[in-house]
Amino acid sequence: MGCPENDAHLAADVLIKSDLRGIDSHGVARLAGYVRLWDKKRINANPFIRVVHETPSTATVDGDAGLGLVVAPFAMTIALKKAEQSGSGWVSVKNSNHFGIAAYHALMAVEKDMIGMAMTNASPLVAPTFSKERMLGTNPICYGFPAGNYPPVIIDMATSTAANGKLEVAQRKQRPIPSGWVQQADGTPSTNPSALSSGGSLLPLGGDRDHGSHKGYALGSAVDILSAVLSGASYGPWAPPFVAFLEPKDDQPGEGLGHFLGAMRVDGFRPVEDYKANMDRWIERFQHAERIDPAQRVIIPGEPEFEAETINRIQGIPLVESVIGDLRDLAVRFNIKTLEI
Amino acid sequence: MGCPENDAHLAADVLIKSDLRGIDSHGVARLAGYVRLWDKKRINANPFIRVVHETPSTATVDGDAGLGLVVAPFAMTIALKKAEQSGSGWVSVKNSNHFGIAAYHALMAVEKDMIGMAMTNASPLVAPTFSKERMLGTNPICYGFPAGNYPPVIIDMATSTAANGKLEVAQRKQRPIPSGWVQQADGTPSTNPSALSSGGSLLPLGGDRDHGSHKGYALGSAVDILSAVLSGASYGPWAPPFVAFLEPKDDQPGEGLGHFLGAMRVDGFRPVEDYKANMDRWIERFQHAERIDPAQRVIIPGEPEFEAETINRIQGIPLVESVIGDLRDLAVRFNIKTLEI
Repeated sequence: MGCPENDAHLAADVLIKSDLRGIDSHGVARLAGYVRLWDKKRINANPFIRVVHETPSTATVDGDAGLGLVVAPFAMTIALKKAEQSGSGWVSVKNSNHFGIAAYHALMAVEKDMIGMAMTNASPLVAPTFSKERMLGTNPICYGFPAGNYPPVIIDMATSTAANGKLEVAQRKQRPIPSGWVQQADGTPSTNPSALSSGGSLLPLGGDRDHGSHKGYALGSAVDILSAVLSGASYGPWAPPFVAFLEPKDDQPGEGLGHFLGAMRVDGFRPVEDYKANMDRWIERFQHAERIDPAQRVIIPGEPEFEAETINRIQGIPLVESVIGDLRDLAVRFNIKTLEI
Repeated sequence: MGCPENDAHLAADVLIKSDLRGIDSHGVARLAGYVRLWDKKRINANPFIRVVHETPSTATVDGDAGLGLVVAPFAMTIALKKAEQSGSGWVSVKNSNHFGIAAYHALMAVEKDMIGMAMTNASPLVAPTFSKERMLGTNPICYGFPAGNYPPVIIDMATSTAANGKLEVAQRKQRPIPSGWVQQADGTPSTNPSALSSGGSLLPLGGDRDHGSHKGYALGSAVDILSAVLSGASYGPWAPPFVAFLEPKDDQPGEGLGHFLGAMRVDGFRPVEDYKANMDRWIERFQHAERIDPAQRVIIPGEPEFEAETINRIQGIPLVESVIGDLRDLAVRFNIKTLEI
């Protein structure tokens, strides 16, 4: 595509990290999608990413329509530098694109004994409570907390009840989905996984008002405001869609997608060893919380992804046939020699 | 109780602000509860609240067992000063007590054209996904976003599906509650509002695994870690209970309750007028999102509380008889002349 070599390596690293962590929906399976956006000239392969506004602990970054996979690590690097100097760093990003898994960016902070945060707005698919209109993306929130002897606690969650990927799995298997995931185009709740592709919408975490969907809607809104209203990106229903066959709406209020990245030095609050000893105690106590089913202990956020990465690093990343096909097609198009699989 | 006069005024202001905003559960109705904690020597009426660790944009505050109603505004004042100087300020607090409504503290930032954040851990009542043990409080998260011509967007939400107050209302009215709010002591889901007082637990936002309770559990965990593991307060099931008849557990890993307060200058990211114009456009667009029921438009987070305050400032704050009785008893005990109501 013409990406500088460093950028290409970085983008590949973000995608592969996702597959390693078992988040297939955000890994190399998306590569063809990024290329389609580049074909539409909605991704700039050689961007001039830069800080356009700053204070000692805050900044706004203009991604120059680059790959979010490259823009977000750039922004997190700024956040880390500011945190080193001022205790914390917070960067709002405009004019970007899909940034892969939020956890990749938060982990950049965790590796330096900092608490990491990453969020992004995304293609509008989620309807606010009482609405049938797609107004918000699945707008993920990620917190990364370093630990001592345990893997870090990594929270990486869509603010909708379920992410789109889970719906696609149910659709392929033609299985009904739980209530509270989607509604039909007219706003009727549905357990049909095709409701979204038939013009319906995803529901905010909580599902309906009685079950707290106003909270999921509010969290998704916070992500939208921090990522896009604060930076000057497009927000709400104007957030540019990831799929290349949908054009961004006219009358854009800002530029591209927005992200929000943050880092706080643990030793900006207390000595790292004290924090880590307590973090380990926190983890152990939660692992030993009384079980409902004796066979199922409480899971610490990030454990499943850590286990997936441990296994996948040894056994390799399982890829489905359609993704292998996409990668072969891309290799042919870009004249890249493939490994025989 | 022996609070310095400024502290008494401040604490009263926090409680009354809650009642004004229609959050009766956190207003003057709690005054008797704070006094009971003071009777038990768990609240220090005349604390030496101080910064014990800091960088230009971060700090840890020791609340010296003071009223959270006083400790949290102190900590937010530190955050605001740091934000003025460095763009943002983040303060983790240990050795505190219940801080009232989170929105009070976030609004201190909003008034200065900053984005405010406030969270706190709380009495353990919420069971993580797959557990029947009370491991977390309702651990609220609050974001306050200034707007231009509209009231600020204020998100102030428990990370459980429903807050305890809603359960108490249902219990008084002897009405069943929606699924996903509580479980019985053995972990069986329940729609009986008495399940909590019979040894059960509140459920994290989402209610069960299928509906995303692992996300509510993760958010409550993030609040617990930022408020308590980071500051040196007690966390998880050790968080000291608000009710004075329950003693804190032995073997405390930290000191008192913890909070986390933050402020970011809007103009640390973009000019305030640009941000406000876009915030207003965001609000208008969401108010006009397509409705499911033509009679019910989409609600902007914070609107109901703003409307309650507008009405209550004119009409006065409605108090139930039992709260009036509590206030009269306190007046007699502390030899305070009461207004005749």
